[in-house]
Amino acid sequence: MAVPTTTTHPLLEAHRETLDAATQALRERSYYSRYPESPSPRVYGETAPQDGQAAHEAVLNSDFTALADQPTTGRTVGSERSPYGPALGVRYPELDVPAAIAAAQAAIPAWRDAGPEVRAAVCVEIIERINKRSHEMAHAVMHTSGQPFVMSFQAGGPHAQDRALEAVVVALEEQRRIPASVTWEKPAKGEPIRMQKDYRLVPRGVALVIGCNTFPTWNAYPGIFASLATGNPVVIKPHPRGVLPLALTTAIARDVLAEAGFDRALVQLAPEEDGGTLAKDLALDPAVRIIDYTGGPGFGHWLETEAAARGKLVYTEKAGLNTVVVDSTDDLKGMLGNLAFSFSLYSGQMCTAPQNVYVPATGVQTDEGHLSAEEFAEKLAGAITRFTSDDARAVEILGATVNDDVRSRATDVPALAARLGGEVVLDARPVTHPTYPDAVVRTPALIAVEADNTEAYTQECFGPVAFVVRTQDTTESLRRFAETVREHGGMTAAVYSTDEQVLDAARDAAAEAGVALSENLTGQVFVNQTAAFSDFHGTGANPAANSAYADAAFVAARFRVITSRRHV
Amino acid sequence: MAVPTTTTHPLLEAHRETLDAATQALRERSYYSRYPESPSPRVYGETAPQDGQAAHEAVLNSDFTALADQPTTGRTVGSERSPYGPALGVRYPELDVPAAIAAAQAAIPAWRDAGPEVRAAVCVEIIERINKRSHEMAHAVMHTSGQPFVMSFQAGGPHAQDRALEAVVVALEEQRRIPASVTWEKPAKGEPIRMQKDYRLVPRGVALVIGCNTFPTWNAYPGIFASLATGNPVVIKPHPRGVLPLALTTAIARDVLAEAGFDRALVQLAPEEDGGTLAKDLALDPAVRIIDYTGGPGFGHWLETEAAARGKLVYTEKAGLNTVVVDSTDDLKGMLGNLAFSFSLYSGQMCTAPQNVYVPATGVQTDEGHLSAEEFAEKLAGAITRFTSDDARAVEILGATVNDDVRSRATDVPALAARLGGEVVLDARPVTHPTYPDAVVRTPALIAVEADNTEAYTQECFGPVAFVVRTQDTTESLRRFAETVREHGGMTAAVYSTDEQVLDAARDAAAEAGVALSENLTGQVFVNQTAAFSDFHGTGANPAANSAYADAAFVAARFRVITSRRHV
Repeated sequence: MAVPTTTTHPLLEAHRETLDAATQALRERSYYSRYPESPSPRVYGETAPQDGQAAHEAVLNSDFTALADQPTTGRTVGSERSPYGPALGVRYPELDVPAAIAAAQAAIPAWRDAGPEVRAAVCVEIIERINKRSHEMAHAVMHTSGQPFVMSFQAGGPHAQDRALEAVVVALEEQRRIPASVTWEKPAKGEPIRMQKDYRLVPRGVALVIGCNTFPTWNAYPGIFASLATGNPVVIKPHPRGVLPLALTTAIARDVLAEAGFDRALVQLAPEEDGGTLAKDLALDPAVRIIDYTGGPGFGHWLETEAAARGKLVYTEKAGLNTVVVDSTDDLKGMLGNLAFSFSLYSGQMCTAPQNVYVPATGVQTDEGHLSAEEFAEKLAGAITRFTSDDARAVEILGATVNDDVRSRATDVPALAARLGGEVVLDARPVTHPTYPDAVVRTPALIAVEADNTEAYTQECFGPVAFVVRTQDTTESLRRFAETVREHGGMTAAVYSTDEQVLDAARDAAAEAGVALSENLTGQVFVNQTAAFSDFHGTGANPAANSAYADAAFVAARFRVITSRRHV
Repeated sequence: MAVPTTTTHPLLEAHRETLDAATQALRERSYYSRYPESPSPRVYGETAPQDGQAAHEAVLNSDFTALADQPTTGRTVGSERSPYGPALGVRYPELDVPAAIAAAQAAIPAWRDAGPEVRAAVCVEIIERINKRSHEMAHAVMHTSGQPFVMSFQAGGPHAQDRALEAVVVALEEQRRIPASVTWEKPAKGEPIRMQKDYRLVPRGVALVIGCNTFPTWNAYPGIFASLATGNPVVIKPHPRGVLPLALTTAIARDVLAEAGFDRALVQLAPEEDGGTLAKDLALDPAVRIIDYTGGPGFGHWLETEAAARGKLVYTEKAGLNTVVVDSTDDLKGMLGNLAFSFSLYSGQMCTAPQNVYVPATGVQTDEGHLSAEEFAEKLAGAITRFTSDDARAVEILGATVNDDVRSRATDVPALAARLGGEVVLDARPVTHPTYPDAVVRTPALIAVEADNTEAYTQECFGPVAFVVRTQDTTESLRRFAETVREHGGMTAAVYSTDEQVLDAARDAAAEAGVALSENLTGQVFVNQTAAFSDFHGTGANPAANSAYADAAFVAARFRVITSRRHV
């Protein structure tokens, strides 16, 4: 037949309501979440926490057999060690890349011809099945990323699942814009000219998703599901220290695909040891047409230049200078508490965590009186100190440092400050984890620098170190904010002001910089958090990321339309 | 204000119906045309033909003062010579590029903040004003491209205008998906968390449109209007031999923009002499963030690699191997007539003109009996000969050859055939133009080659030379069709068969190749013509072009969304 579509697949009916609700939510961009963020047994079932833990422990120190049916070299790889201490000991089958690419390509026609509605429904089934294993996933994310447990559950589980569903419906909406078939009738002398035109959506080719260590699922799901929903087979190259969450994801996806009548080769995992070159090798494979990447700017830049120059679609999320402009506030306590949380959460190891806080030398007007720049910095330091004072509670916010690079910065803050020409306002405090004594946990540090010392604060300082940058006044703060983000990138920005003119100017500066702006956050919403279906993650408008989760630009080029037309 | 939008612009009301109708047409993809394709005085006004001609003649041999208000170096450029003979003698002010880039950037904020609805309405006004000057434009297109008059009118006028309107509404639809502002309300213990979120659409930056010689307006308008409608200022770099149509377009656009309260610098023309480097210089300008290009594969490839590697959005339309697979027909006469027209129209100088005709050695079953491959080739040659036999009528189809490259191929077809290892089935006949004796006009030539002589027919042979490629059977024809287009690209493809299985296989081959397919065209629709709002021009799925006029992928990345959010 001309335009093969499947209209009777059982998953279509099973997930119609979910897709309708999510599509509606996308159009409205107001609050929507499909997957409950509470790990409570009341939500996920009485035995869910224990079952999840048991499932996690069962895969440790063993071969990951759930992916044994992938094409493999026969070797196994795996060197994950929990940031909380223990080695995971999971050995994954090494992918036979040429065989895997061939299998992926062979899987295309049936998946392509199933059409966007069936693909979306199958994707939803995958996400639902992932959701049911959120507790197990939380342990996997915690012991690869170093996130605290509840955050691992939320960000690695339901929040990532919501972003996955978002990508599916953004892709579905774009594909729905193209009718399967139309009759075209052009008026003419005598009889009109009539043609039937069939529109067939075709994928670009094999899609590569390169995962990161800190958010193995959250940052990988948008690319995985955007590519899959538009008909492209996906090869997932996880970070060598963040394999397990994506191995679980891959295994679930393959099972669902097979049960739904499709080829397991539509999702494959390509794990490797630390120091491997698989990401680059796969990126250069001519069959790979789409690349989604989260990670450091070095390799990201290589992809944006070398891979893009080879005609591949490249979606990146790298790093940037997340900025807070402090002008004035009518809720000093709320502001300090909010910022203390944002700095502390996962020890600043979020791509969205604030780094540079601009404070005017003229001081900050507050509901508790006028504060000099120095007084404000001290107040902020005090808020962080208080927020992280109890070790047992602090570790549930701070998590563990993910790698030696972060640890090196947080270990000798006075030396770092001296090297950068700044002054320590608050040192990072070592925290002993009550359960995991080997975890390296540090509270956030603050370093004060002058605004003209741009070298100090215009590179990303990933982890629990932030800068209080003293500017002449808020006008300079906004100018430097726009300039530094336009040049170096930024994932998030925040402003605190009671002055509508300043807020307006901040919005203009954010538009110039190309970064989303949070204004006067003093409650339970934090600058480093975005909500699927409402907030975009990234903008694609500054060097931190060339993509946004999930706008039309993130999906529209992942498929193409092939028309066939004939007279009728 | 947070999200500046203009809701009271007078052009909004003036063009609401047009935008509504065009948007609806886009969703339906059935027949729609806003701009009448007939140059008849009954449609465009009794004096339109004479007025258009007079207006055209008035700009010849003089300075093009309508662009005198652009930033200029003070020098003038211009070396256009009509393919019909006469030098145009138009001198254009040379653009002061640094000043023009600065002016374009300065024009962004007001245009950005006007919002998508106002931008779309202003774009429609520009297109309407261009439409009113379609006769003048027809002369400009004819005497730069060498197209015959009626084609110049249609393709250079209303058809280009329809494609422009299409780009505007594709862009508008994508922008409309983002609400200006929403209230987000997340359930929480006690009071829900409420935020207002404003979404501001921002452009990428300066957009460069690089025009071609053969379709100066038709191929430039989609990029110009897609960028303009999404908020980007546009610098148009016309082909040195195709300046006038885009100079007229630029002048009209600038007048409309100024009248609508916006900066003329939103559209600027950068003309240059033949052999200049302006396209490359502009492409490398850091301010240029979007590039639309139509032209040869050499520079197109450079843009796809070097410019893309610099983070610029690059949309190309280059060249390819347009293929006809002949299997069988129940309307031999209709088929031959249709193909003769397609080969003859504008002497094969369309990027969509067929080049390679695969005919099986087993012959072609027809309603006039079975034909051997050789008999079929002779019949096709005869149809072309008859169709172009009357010089005065032929020139109104053939037009004039556009450049020496085309002329060189059409001048000594036997030598070309010998060089390629083929045989001349039909030589190109020199035709004397009754009005323009200096025009070089040639009828289409046919060269027969064997399918394994791939070198002969796997490069684009732009102009009035096509190949009859003898394959073993239709299975080989379809295989070679898919392979050659996947590797070398193709803008169009056609198949003739009475066998549904062959048609199905052809559709699959077209999907594999990534090219649109026309089936059994025997009447007044031709493989080289696409209809705006229904047919895509190009697919972006093969090397001939990385873009399609006009799908979501053509517009979605031209703007970005900047969110600002705050508690309410």
